[in-house]
Order: sequence, then structure tokens, then C-alpha cells
Amino acid sequence: MIKGFSAAAVAAGIRYEGRLDLGLIYSDTPAVAAGVFTTNRVKAAPVLLDMERLRHGRAQAILVNSGNANACTGDAGMQAALATSAMVADRLGIDADLVQVASTGVIGEPMSEEPFARAMDTLVGKLSSDGFDDLARAIMTTDTVPKTARTTIEVDGHEVNIFGVAKGAGMIMPDMATMLCFVLTDAQIVFPELRRMLVAGVEQSFNRITVDGDTSTNDSVLILANGAAGNPWIDEENRAAGELFAGALDTVLKDLALQIVADGEGATKLVTIRIVGARDFEGAMSAAQTIANSALVKTAFFGEDANWGRIIAALGRSDCPFSPDRVGIWFDEVQMVENGQGCGPEAEAAATRVLKKDRFTVTVDLYDGSESAEVYTCDFSLDYVKINADYRT
Amino acid sequence: MIKGFSAAAVAAGIRYEGRLDLGLIYSDTPAVAAGVFTTNRVKAAPVLLDMERLRHGRAQAILVNSGNANACTGDAGMQAALATSAMVADRLGIDADLVQVASTGVIGEPMSEEPFARAMDTLVGKLSSDGFDDLARAIMTTDTVPKTARTTIEVDGHEVNIFGVAKGAGMIMPDMATMLCFVLTDAQIVFPELRRMLVAGVEQSFNRITVDGDTSTNDSVLILANGAAGNPWIDEENRAAGELFAGALDTVLKDLALQIVADGEGATKLVTIRIVGARDFEGAMSAAQTIANSALVKTAFFGEDANWGRIIAALGRSDCPFSPDRVGIWFDEVQMVENGQGCGPEAEAAATRVLKKDRFTVTVDLYDGSESAEVYTCDFSLDYVKINADYRT
Repeated sequence: MIKGFSAAAVAAGIRYEGRLDLGLIYSDTPAVAAGVFTTNRVKAAPVLLDMERLRHGRAQAILVNSGNANACTGDAGMQAALATSAMVADRLGIDADLVQVASTGVIGEPMSEEPFARAMDTLVGKLSSDGFDDLARAIMTTDTVPKTARTTIEVDGHEVNIFGVAKGAGMIMPDMATMLCFVLTDAQIVFPELRRMLVAGVEQSFNRITVDGDTSTNDSVLILANGAAGNPWIDEENRAAGELFAGALDTVLKDLALQIVADGEGATKLVTIRIVGARDFEGAMSAAQTIANSALVKTAFFGEDANWGRIIAALGRSDCPFSPDRVGIWFDEVQMVENGQGCGPEAEAAATRVLKKDRFTVTVDLYDGSESAEVYTCDFSLDYVKINADYRT
Repeated sequence: MIKGFSAAAVAAGIRYEGRLDLGLIYSDTPAVAAGVFTTNRVKAAPVLLDMERLRHGRAQAILVNSGNANACTGDAGMQAALATSAMVADRLGIDADLVQVASTGVIGEPMSEEPFARAMDTLVGKLSSDGFDDLARAIMTTDTVPKTARTTIEVDGHEVNIFGVAKGAGMIMPDMATMLCFVLTDAQIVFPELRRMLVAGVEQSFNRITVDGDTSTNDSVLILANGAAGNPWIDEENRAAGELFAGALDTVLKDLALQIVADGEGATKLVTIRIVGARDFEGAMSAAQTIANSALVKTAFFGEDANWGRIIAALGRSDCPFSPDRVGIWFDEVQMVENGQGCGPEAEAAATRVLKKDRFTVTVDLYDGSESAEVYTCDFSLDYVKINADYRT
């Protein structure tokens, strides 16, 4: 239970009939709000509208649909975003500026307001503190499971709850991906701190995952903090409470990010790529991302093949400087490469056993410094191609 | 017939029995020689050795094997490269510095000299002007067809021939990829001109293709010009002959590069990505490469789905600046996007017919300048994953 929040979802027939595709989150009172959005140059209409409205740092409702991304839809798309948010505001009796909108689905299809208009009364009427499971389902596209996470902490004697819901399975890559995430908390927290913690948390979670190296036009992470917990304000001076809250927020964000990778389109394995011993952090991140996005590395994971040659080849085309004759590579605890060369058939047999697991870590030590970076990826399976060759048909 | 060159190939059992896997190219006289090699930080032993030996701009033989890349094999790998090239030099009675070596296959496996030693007499004994078809087969790994190209020009009254042979199907991406290419010509041409033309030709051919965005440790393009045509020397002063030769060389290189993409692992389509109207060339190349490497774009090609939203999303995460509301996209002659928005169901139906073809061009006009760039890619199919999940097993 996140005090003071309710949610609902309905099947509005936006793209398919009989499937939950329109959701609403509502806070009883205007909440402090912050957001992080796609870095793609092409931004969907709802992203542009949300960014504008969040300048005030306040929001009270989030209207979200699947089935249509409302991206590359021009002025008509922006009109649709404005009109549908006005419908919500009207029914709820709040200012339209307090309504955030989010869309996910196919890019470039005109966004009709009609399904929204027909469904709006039912949607608002269904708002309930039990509505979050439906909402988590309504935002799914190629996701196979709904994704939620929650945690409770005690801040200065007050129970504070954080709840997050997310969607995302393809077009996933550091810098956000086709993903939506809404975090709700009843904490009382000032806007600058909330925004700072969200940005830092996203950097360590959603910006560290990749499914296919593609980013999207619609990525959005929104957080609403309505203060219903009644805790003393978390602000710059209340450091202990701030750190406690930030840690809990990070946990929820990381939990959701890993759920997204594990549910990556066609994925059968969740793999952590960890670079250690790098000269600088940027190099470590480049190395981790290049390995995590290599089609050859990811298909080898799917084939349960400890093909470290592909890992070292990907490393070699990254922006990370290193000496090829120093590199060490481990699959979980099994060292497979030492000084840039293979450790032999026994190590390979042991590494192959690691690759049969659902989750494992590939560690690459560059022995060139003390910086490190981690990226979370999945394998690249036949089903990924099937899903993406058929998506619109 | 390329005057003064012979070739041979044998089944040496380097990785598999009974399969051509060791080849030799020989010039009757020392040839002017130049090379372009992988930009990957991890370079295989034969690449390092060739780079060193080509400082003299001369070569007379190329020893090439498939089945083992001799990469990440440390000092022993370099010893193997030296020893096997010495075997060739010994049998042919030439200086070992005139022997280039090239390897392709699995990375990180120790390279045994024994199969080379056993096969060497047979290999050298088989050298013949008819041996190039066997050689083209011996260098194949996941290639499904051998790749050769040839052209003949007349330089100052002399017939000059250019012949090229290449391999490559996966780990293909601008900046060279797992590919080998050997170009032989009987032209008489000075080293600086030969090297300049090779570098320029590779830039417009092999550096414009992509299969999977991965680059390798072994990429090499070598050219040997033995002068057997007896044409007056092509040098800086003989401009007309130089331009004629450079054009013919470009044709051979481009032909081989497109053969590689068309034979991309699992590929069913060859797609040209053309960016026009860009502010600068670097931006145009970044845009073309990002689209050409997008897993979502490539799976849509496989699904024959004119999903331009994925193209514009890939464009948006490239390093190319542009205005999303100006972009136009065409599939061959069919305009599908105008001013950043879809052109409707009729255009989509027409574009879908284009996608059913084996070869087509996607043109993106940014209406932001006059620079352009082209990259050649293929679709991303179920077979790509099958091939790469099973490669070593």
C-alpha cells in the first residue's frame, strides 16, 4: 500500500480488442514529481509534453497507453496528447498541467483520441488502491510478465513506501530504451532532492541494461512523491533520511531494470558484464557496453558456448585502451583467460557449466587501473528474431 | 589469367578433416605489395607479422588457412606464424620476409604447426594458374559461396588484369570485420600509388559493409602487383593510367564487399542504407551505420515489414544532428515518410512490395545539407542466430 495513490486499467481497444491497454495512476493530492526521459533525438509527443509540464516539479496523475507510441505523429500527435490529458483532468477535476502522459507501442501511427474518450469514464470510475496489478498489465507490449517492485523503510518513525511499475523488453539499451517506469512513494520529499536521487538511481539501473542496443522515442521514468506518509520533509539538511530514501529508491529501480533484462525479447539468460582494472570509468563502460551489445557474444550465450574469443574481439573494438596480453576473463568464478590466452580444456569445461545457468557474470580484468563498470544484458535467441520479424503483423 | 601468379589449396586437417583449409598464392617474381588490416586493438599474430613485413612494400607469396584464427595465442602463436611462413619460403626458395600469412577461424586456440608441415610439399607441388577456385574454397568458414571478382583493363596498350578473392560472412562491420581479401594484379605500379589506391578502395568497399556490427582480430586486405603485364610503370606522373587502374581496383573491391554482405550469415536480403541531405559526412556515416547495425531494423527487413519507426528511432540515437520533423524516408522509389510522418496505408503497401525483393535501398533525406553516405547491410534472420549459437559445437 502506497498511501494516497490509486490506479486503474481498461481495455480501450487502442490497437487490439479485449486487452488492457489504457491505465491511470492518481494521487489524492498534487505530488512532487520528477522525470528522466529518452536521449533519442526523436522524442514522442507525450515525452515532449511531460518534459514541459515537469518544469513545475508537480504532478497528480499519469495516463498511460500501450498499442501506439504516439511518436513521429507531428502536430496531431501533440494535440492527441494534450486532448487525452485534458479528458483526465476534466474527469478528476484537476489542472491539466498536473497530468503526465506516456505511450508505448508502434511508432508513426496516427493516435486516435476516440478510444480514450470512450474509455475515460470507466477508467476514472475504476480507480482503486488495488488497481496496480491491472495497470502493470496494461503497459505491457512484448513483455511476457508484468514488472513491479516495492519496498518499505522507516523515516524518522514514519513508514514510507516506494512502489515501482515498469515495462520494457525490446529497444533496450543504456540511455533508456523503450521502457516506461512509474515510481510512486508516499514520502514527503523536496523536489531538488527527489530529482537528484531519481537521476542518480536511473544512471545505476536503467542506464546499465541492454537487450538489443536500440533506444527508443518514448522512454520515460517518472516519480511521484505525495507526502502521505507524513514523515518530516526529506531535504538537503535531513541527510540520514535522504540517504535511506535514496538507497531504497535505488533498490526498486535496480530491481525493475533487472526484471526488464530478464524479460528481454526472447531472452533465456540474464548476464552481468563486469569490467574491472580499467584506467578510467568511461573506458570501462565502453568495454562493458560493447561486449553486452555484441550479437556474436549474445548468440554464443544462447548457444551456451564459452566462446571468449568473441568477448575479447568485442573488447578490442570498444573505446577502452588495454593491453591484449594482460587480459583475464572469468565466467562466474571460473577463469577462462589469463594474460590474453585461453586456460585450456578443463577451464572451458567448467566455464561451459556456468553458461548453462540462467544467470551468471562475465568478469573481464584489464589489469590497467582501478576503475570498474557493470552492464546487464541477456542472450540473443531465435525467439528475439521471431518476435521482431513478426511484431507488426 | 593474371600473368605470373599461381595458387593451390589442400585439406590439411587444421580443424576438420577432408575440407580444403590451407591455401597458397605465389608470384613468379617479387611483387609490389600493400595491405590494410583490422583496427581492432586485439590483432592476430599473422596480422602483426604481415604489418611488419609489408614495411618493405614487397611480397611474393601468401599462405592462408581457415579453421584457426591464430589470435590470442601469445608468443607461441607468433612462433607458429613465423615457422609456417619459413616452411613456405624454404620450399619456394624465397626470403621468408616475402611471405605474407593470413588465418581465419576460431579465436584463442593454440595453432599447431604440424598440419602445415605435413601438407607443405603437396601444397607447393600443386601450385598452378588454375588453383584459384580451390583457394577461394579453402578460405571459407561460415561463407556459403566462394567469392571472387576480376576485371581487365588496357593500360598504355598493355592488357592489365586484376583478380580478387575474399572470405567473410560474420563479424562484418565497417572497419574491416572477419574478412580476408587478396587482390592480385599483373600491373606494373609503384608502391606509394598502389598503397594509396588500396586504402581509398577499401574505404569505399569493405569499410561500408556490415553484417552484425562486430569486427575481428584477423581482417586483412592484401594486394600484390607483380608487373608481369609489362605496362609502363603506373606512378604519380602517369595520371591517366593511375585513374584507370584505381577505378578498376575499386570495382573489384566493391564487387567482393557486396558478395560478402549478400552472403552475410543467415542473410536473405542485401540492403543499401543511403543518407542524403546531411550537414556533414561524419554525421551521414554515423546515421547510415547506426541504421545498418540496428537489430530491430534488420529483423524488420527479415520480416519484410516496412517498419520505418525503427529506422527513425535508430537515426535518432546516431551521432547525426537533424530535425525530426523534416526527415523523408524512401524504400527504393516509394516514399514512406515525409516531414517525419508516415505517408499512409497506400505508401506502406507499396513499400511492403519493395521489402519482398532480395535487394533494395533505403534512402533517408535529412534536408539539412548536401553530404551523403552509403552503407551496405543485410537482414537479421533466424539462421544468423542458429549459425552463431552453434558455431563451435
